[in-house]
Amino acid sequence: MIMHKELPIISPDKFHDECAVFGIYGHEEAANLTYLGLYALQHRGQEASGIVSGDGDQFYIQKGMGLVADIYNKTTLEKLPGRMAIGHNRYSTAGGNDLKNVQPFNVNFAFGNLALAHNGNLINAQVLRNELEAYGAIFQSTSDTEVIIHLIAHSRASTFLARVMDALNQVRGAFSLVLMTDNGLIAVRDPHGLRPLCLGRVRGSWVVASETCAFDLLDAEYIREIEPGELVVLSDQGIDSHRPFPKVDPAMCVFEYVYFARPDSRIYGANAVYSTRKALGRRLAKESWVDADIVIPVPDSGVPAALGYSEGGGIPFETGLIRNHYVGRTFIEPEQSIRHFGVKVKLNAVPEVLTGKRVVVVDDSLVRGTTSRKIVKMLRNAGAKEVHMRISSPPIVSPCFYGIDTPTKKELIASNHSTEEIRKYITADSLAYLSLDGMLQSAPGVPAQYCNACFTEKYPIAFTRAEEMQLGLFGPSADVKKVM
Amino acid sequence: MIMHKELPIISPDKFHDECAVFGIYGHEEAANLTYLGLYALQHRGQEASGIVSGDGDQFYIQKGMGLVADIYNKTTLEKLPGRMAIGHNRYSTAGGNDLKNVQPFNVNFAFGNLALAHNGNLINAQVLRNELEAYGAIFQSTSDTEVIIHLIAHSRASTFLARVMDALNQVRGAFSLVLMTDNGLIAVRDPHGLRPLCLGRVRGSWVVASETCAFDLLDAEYIREIEPGELVVLSDQGIDSHRPFPKVDPAMCVFEYVYFARPDSRIYGANAVYSTRKALGRRLAKESWVDADIVIPVPDSGVPAALGYSEGGGIPFETGLIRNHYVGRTFIEPEQSIRHFGVKVKLNAVPEVLTGKRVVVVDDSLVRGTTSRKIVKMLRNAGAKEVHMRISSPPIVSPCFYGIDTPTKKELIASNHSTEEIRKYITADSLAYLSLDGMLQSAPGVPAQYCNACFTEKYPIAFTRAEEMQLGLFGPSADVKKVM
Amino acid sequence: MIMHKELPIISPDKFHDECAVFGIYGHEEAANLTYLGLYALQHRGQEASGIVSGDGDQFYIQKGMGLVADIYNKTTLEKLPGRMAIGHNRYSTAGGNDLKNVQPFNVNFAFGNLALAHNGNLINAQVLRNELEAYGAIFQSTSDTEVIIHLIAHSRASTFLARVMDALNQVRGAFSLVLMTDNGLIAVRDPHGLRPLCLGRVRGSWVVASETCAFDLLDAEYIREIEPGELVVLSDQGIDSHRPFPKVDPAMCVFEYVYFARPDSRIYGANAVYSTRKALGRRLAKESWVDADIVIPVPDSGVPAALGYSEGGGIPFETGLIRNHYVGRTFIEPEQSIRHFGVKVKLNAVPEVLTGKRVVVVDDSLVRGTTSRKIVKMLRNAGAKEVHMRISSPPIVSPCFYGIDTPTKKELIASNHSTEEIRKYITADSLAYLSLDGMLQSAPGVPAQYCNACFTEKYPIAFTRAEEMQLGLFGPSADVKKVM
Amino acid sequence: MIMHKELPIISPDKFHDECAVFGIYGHEEAANLTYLGLYALQHRGQEASGIVSGDGDQFYIQKGMGLVADIYNKTTLEKLPGRMAIGHNRYSTAGGNDLKNVQPFNVNFAFGNLALAHNGNLINAQVLRNELEAYGAIFQSTSDTEVIIHLIAHSRASTFLARVMDALNQVRGAFSLVLMTDNGLIAVRDPHGLRPLCLGRVRGSWVVASETCAFDLLDAEYIREIEPGELVVLSDQGIDSHRPFPKVDPAMCVFEYVYFARPDSRIYGANAVYSTRKALGRRLAKESWVDADIVIPVPDSGVPAALGYSEGGGIPFETGLIRNHYVGRTFIEPEQSIRHFGVKVKLNAVPEVLTGKRVVVVDDSLVRGTTSRKIVKMLRNAGAKEVHMRISSPPIVSPCFYGIDTPTKKELIASNHSTEEIRKYITADSLAYLSLDGMLQSAPGVPAQYCNACFTEKYPIAFTRAEEMQLGLFGPSADVKKVM
Repeated sequence: MIMHKELPIISPDKFHDECAVFGIYGHEEAANLTYLGLYALQHRGQEASGIVSGDGDQFYIQKGMGLVADIYNKTTLEKLPGRMAIGHNRYSTAGGNDLKNVQPFNVNFAFGNLALAHNGNLINAQVLRNELEAYGAIFQSTSDTEVIIHLIAHSRASTFLARVMDALNQVRGAFSLVLMTDNGLIAVRDPHGLRPLCLGRVRGSWVVASETCAFDLLDAEYIREIEPGELVVLSDQGIDSHRPFPKVDPAMCVFEYVYFARPDSRIYGANAVYSTRKALGRRLAKESWVDADIVIPVPDSGVPAALGYSEGGGIPFETGLIRNHYVGRTFIEPEQSIRHFGVKVKLNAVPEVLTGKRVVVVDDSLVRGTTSRKIVKMLRNAGAKEVHMRISSPPIVSPCFYGIDTPTKKELIASNHSTEEIRKYITADSLAYLSLDGMLQSAPGVPAQYCNACFTEKYPIAFTRAEEMQLGLFGPSADVKKVM
Repeated sequence: MIMHKELPIISPDKFHDECAVFGIYGHEEAANLTYLGLYALQHRGQEASGIVSGDGDQFYIQKGMGLVADIYNKTTLEKLPGRMAIGHNRYSTAGGNDLKNVQPFNVNFAFGNLALAHNGNLINAQVLRNELEAYGAIFQSTSDTEVIIHLIAHSRASTFLARVMDALNQVRGAFSLVLMTDNGLIAVRDPHGLRPLCLGRVRGSWVVASETCAFDLLDAEYIREIEPGELVVLSDQGIDSHRPFPKVDPAMCVFEYVYFARPDSRIYGANAVYSTRKALGRRLAKESWVDADIVIPVPDSGVPAALGYSEGGGIPFETGLIRNHYVGRTFIEPEQSIRHFGVKVKLNAVPEVLTGKRVVVVDDSLVRGTTSRKIVKMLRNAGAKEVHMRISSPPIVSPCFYGIDTPTKKELIASNHSTEEIRKYITADSLAYLSLDGMLQSAPGVPAQYCNACFTEKYPIAFTRAEEMQLGLFGPSADVKKVM
Repeated sequence: MIMHKELPIISPDKFHDECAVFGIYGHEEAANLTYLGLYALQHRGQEASGIVSGDGDQFYIQKGMGLVADIYNKTTLEKLPGRMAIGHNRYSTAGGNDLKNVQPFNVNFAFGNLALAHNGNLINAQVLRNELEAYGAIFQSTSDTEVIIHLIAHSRASTFLARVMDALNQVRGAFSLVLMTDNGLIAVRDPHGLRPLCLGRVRGSWVVASETCAFDLLDAEYIREIEPGELVVLSDQGIDSHRPFPKVDPAMCVFEYVYFARPDSRIYGANAVYSTRKALGRRLAKESWVDADIVIPVPDSGVPAALGYSEGGGIPFETGLIRNHYVGRTFIEPEQSIRHFGVKVKLNAVPEVLTGKRVVVVDDSLVRGTTSRKIVKMLRNAGAKEVHMRISSPPIVSPCFYGIDTPTKKELIASNHSTEEIRKYITADSLAYLSLDGMLQSAPGVPAQYCNACFTEKYPIAFTRAEEMQLGLFGPSADVKKVM
Repeated sequence: MIMHKELPIISPDKFHDECAVFGIYGHEEAANLTYLGLYALQHRGQEASGIVSGDGDQFYIQKGMGLVADIYNKTTLEKLPGRMAIGHNRYSTAGGNDLKNVQPFNVNFAFGNLALAHNGNLINAQVLRNELEAYGAIFQSTSDTEVIIHLIAHSRASTFLARVMDALNQVRGAFSLVLMTDNGLIAVRDPHGLRPLCLGRVRGSWVVASETCAFDLLDAEYIREIEPGELVVLSDQGIDSHRPFPKVDPAMCVFEYVYFARPDSRIYGANAVYSTRKALGRRLAKESWVDADIVIPVPDSGVPAALGYSEGGGIPFETGLIRNHYVGRTFIEPEQSIRHFGVKVKLNAVPEVLTGKRVVVVDDSLVRGTTSRKIVKMLRNAGAKEVHMRISSPPIVSPCFYGIDTPTKKELIASNHSTEEIRKYITADSLAYLSLDGMLQSAPGVPAQYCNACFTEKYPIAFTRAEEMQLGLFGPSADVKKVM
């Protein structure tokens, strides 16, 4: 009997954004537009999705595992009435088909209905959970996000809004949050603004979304970003902005520019994802030019940086790798060993482009190196004479604790190997990363406004000793298990 | 109550290949490799798929509606034992969820088990079916392909192979066929070679596939194409080639080079899909250059031609349209009218690339014009100053009857409008098609070897008067309904 | 790891009727009433069901595995328009979830649409199938019923009706058939009338059904039985009766009275299922009275005979075995050995009824003896002092080839063991069967009109030598594999 | 287009038990035996079922809507490892497919894992819920049972057992509960013992179940009942019995004898369900004899009382109504009006038994009268000359608040009509109920030990004024909505 191995298809050699959030208040088709918004934000989370709508009286819920286009249909959307809705895409639900961790979370408690969608990750969730459980709280999920709900329920503040502010001042970490009650929406971004959150308007209704590509599909107008530390209430009284947190320096994730955000999106107030990526490529060409015949991207994310490299370096751009877009969630690997199988399922080389050529191949980041190694070999098999790998961001040396799915420090090849060692491992003729300065100067605004912890280990939020132990940052095995 | 409109997502403004076929003989993991082959050929048919395997004694069948990656899994593949298998992807099954039209067809008849997968379309299927039914034949499906099976069953030739040859000499049209019996495989291509079919080898086993990208994923070696009019038997006796048909001139579909085939595939014996597409773009730049700031493709199929235009025309290449690859089968359209909705679900413009620019946008073909019209408007909304549409193939004036899903003649905008009329309709500043000569001279080999009926109405296979009536080529309403 | 054994729940120790058929012509709610009819006939087949309706133009089909109440619902019934419909329940589809063997069969052939539902079994199906395949016929299923369709399609008679008669004169065996064309229904019963078929009327429309309990649920009026050898056409021209077969003696299945038919049904023209069963019990008391405290039935089928035995024998009737009616298709058996598990899932003894009692337990038939053995032990465990098994039919010595699912001859305990041997095996204090004469004289009408082959091996239809070999009636291992 | 009405099939004219509970501690096949136990207890709840198993470290959960035999299979049972398990069948989950109300409930809180299965109903659940929510508790379900979990989590007692006792002393109502922690099981019955709960042993392991029929299928030995007000801990330390409640008089549900319990079960310590039902019938014959030809039961529940009536009254017992046991959850009613349709789907009359007869028909209870009315008419249609309805329990005048699903007071026909009025409504020739004294004296033990509130409105647990308002016992519309 032949045994079949199931192969997960989501690339293990990229960082992954944890989530997308979306909210809309005051629109006849609230759930429909939320569906469209989540669809446009699919790249931020492909494992599960949920929508909760409200009609002022009741909440209505639809959730599922998989892609937005597969989860929702006429029947499910018609079960989501009401003029407000929030939605969430999730990258990963540890433990498979478990719907109980799929957001938005929604509960009925003393103040009525509450639903909540969260992009980010809390540093002190476990400590808070232990305390809450000691007071009799019963948790439904294993998600850190649920802590926020119990903090609200246990708060002794008198109004709902005050309770939310009370709760959020107890948590530390990254949060771009959308909450829904029977009366309206609350959108809030953590004091550092680690993850993006945007505000828009469509036909007199308010919308919030992780990125503006969600607004484009809706014909919504971009208004502005929700600022770091800002809390906004959307209701029949219009929009009301609050600043419930002590003021701190911004520390916005620079990786959104490097890889996460869609190139047609506007984030952090600037219209610059695509041009920043090209600028990273141009700068990379300046920092580490090599004499070659063609520049090719690792599709799709490497395309803008490769175009930038081609422009900056004066080397023709080609598409030497073709991507198969019909990829499912898992893939059956045959017993017969097939060279570079995992990569081949997604990419195939074009021999007529590559044969006899000196090739610069541009990728946005290099995490473990396993995929890069397969790509280099695949290019050589297809006839490339030389293969020069160029990475449009600096070496990644430490994990993210702010809502990005990253491997442990040990698995980050650059945390314990020199660039030359990595070059040998991936079998390239040459390898170069963009410098930290090069990256930060290519991004819009001032370098200081960005979090660059994954490249520098300089985390913008101080850890307590307990958290350091728990996250494995110190102690005998100073490493970290995947945060969630 | 809000009503939701379901929107089919497969582009109504492209021709669509009907099918992919695959076969393998003599491999321990026959079904697994067929699954991989069908996966690599997914672009030729996304509506349904089937695999039949055989162990010399019994046939085993798995079929489903949807994508290869969704239909097959560990469980279904383990139900497909045996050292031979054939598979089929299908573009469209008229009438929804009807598995009875999903190929491979398989039957048990006087000669034992028989399965059959067909890429192409028969001109005289209806006439033959009527005759067979008059003799007592009972059809299971509405597919023209089933006619072949009944012709084999009713043939009075003494051997199975002679019956197959007898049957295939009665049908007229396009067929790249793979048949499986308990003893081996038969692969055959119609005398004109209208559709491609390739032969390869993997670890001592024979494989056949519509395109060589299927071989790459399997680590199979490309041997040669099955030639027009060739019938090949694959069995324990090795490979045996026959020429059962009277000799005619080849008439291979040129549109495979323009759009259908994957750029990393080899078809018609040449390794030239990608370079032909670039050559079409370069020629297009020569024929219809326009002074512009950037050249952008309609992704993904327009990319090589746009690169060719950029090179040939000396205008920078940019990616001004971003494609959303998470598209499902259908999409729910909201009540609220959203500009260019159908296109927006798949494409979004990048304002920072387009604002203030004179833009050449390159597409491979223009069928109805509806999508082009939306794209032009979307580019202008995103800030483009001028929009020049360039098409890397000639105007399409007549439907295909050889296995391609095309609209009726009436719906082909170029069949009854001048280029200037079309330009006005799509609201472009200029519009130009590639000339017929330009296209044929850019393709490998001699121009005469290609079928170009859709551009010229010169069909390589003569119609009988009855077929002309049935296909609507003449008579009071000289038009054609979708062939299958 | 604990392994779970799946236990089929359909009793292996009873004969099982193969099928129920139903048809209706000329009613607005044809499919709905067919659904009700099949529901009422569920006891004749629980493995699969199908309905085909027709509107004079097209046929509409719904089929599924499982119970009528689970297969059909609002949605599926609304997909069955038209004023005529036929339906079928099937006892068993060898090979699991294979819908292709689920009836009604329907095809489109030279004469248009045809659907067919069959209760019974053909003796010469394999021989006919071989001949038809030699002429080029392609079979869709492995069912003997499909032979009839191909015989009709290959007939050279000029009208459809003549072709049906031609076809049915070539088959030998048991058939109560309902056919549907675009113009009406044909109901026909084989010359011996081996299986029942009834005619009724509901609001001016004609209905046919295997048993009249189907009419009761519809508020239909019972008209008469379709007689052995009669063919009836139901159409807009009303009812038209034909006698297409040479006259033979009737041979109606007597087991319908013993066990198969519902006690509230009328079959073979008489209103006597319940009273016949009581009469069998009374006669049994007369033939084999035993001094006991209580008479209990094996529920539910043994109830009327037990009441008859109680009346005839003057011994109080009690319900000492309780039946669990929530039985599913299969049941998971634990590793831990549980006494009499298979029987216990369906039956449980009532200790307060049984303790210290001399018990007569009445069942309608005894096939393998395995269940009886478990029941006897279960009764003793619950406190019974003596257990006397009484069977209200004679010993079964040979299989049925006319549409009843029976074990092989070897598995029929009475075919190779004396009654005393069987008594020892089932560990009863005494065991008695009803005599053949006793049974036949208790049934309505003349004894000669019944088939009693399973009790006597006197088959009413002569076998050819080839059939004998094929059915295993002679030769080295004179036994029989399950017929279908 | 014909519209189809879906008809629920669970009889609206009977009381329904809310639930079954089951638990096992210390057995290798804990989940398997729980599955068997729930299967045997299927009659106490057919809408949903759940099993939670534990291995001392983790809990494993399987739940579903529908019947036990359909919900669980090899795959699901193998996902339930561990040596302890509890299970629950539920009669009704208001609001359809909502798994969140399906028991056992399970949570993870400060003390670790906890699962809970409840048979019964709490009077003061809403009041407690309001209080708990004010303290920050977040409820997952709308079930009153969840209150118990939050009371445990919020208790300030130091041990888990003390917290359970603390919690249960705050609730008022009916509860036969099984709780599971990582260390063992707790089984507890409310002080009045309103619902049954039994203790058994199987191969050295402890089992608890609502009725002993669950023990029979497992080959478990019946030990004794869990007494009213008793709490039992089952763990590796063996069994430990506690009496945490103030002593009150028992008030066990007498309806378990009349209708709910399976006749082969032992409840309340006595082996007497079947014989009690017969005694009720004999007493009924004495109280309200009528000169008739036959006695028939309304099957299946009326059988023992009808046998008792037959014995006591000297009138022959017959089965004049046949029950169809293949009933699904809902049934499609045709447009065409069919007489007595709802009843006919389940019951059909046997004309040959009834024609010309004076018939006594015995049922166990009469709730709304709608079904009785249809049965009387059905019997007359089938030829009965006289129909005398006899009910083996007193008139039902008030709803149950202790875990039985009952209609509102207004819908109970006997609450506002005399027996003569009811007789007229059901169109019987005569109607008689059993007297209250007759019923109580036929049951085992002393009459005072039974709750008879539904016959007398004497509720054993005093209501607060708030509860009376909420339950609708007083005030302007002194009626009650279905409790849960």
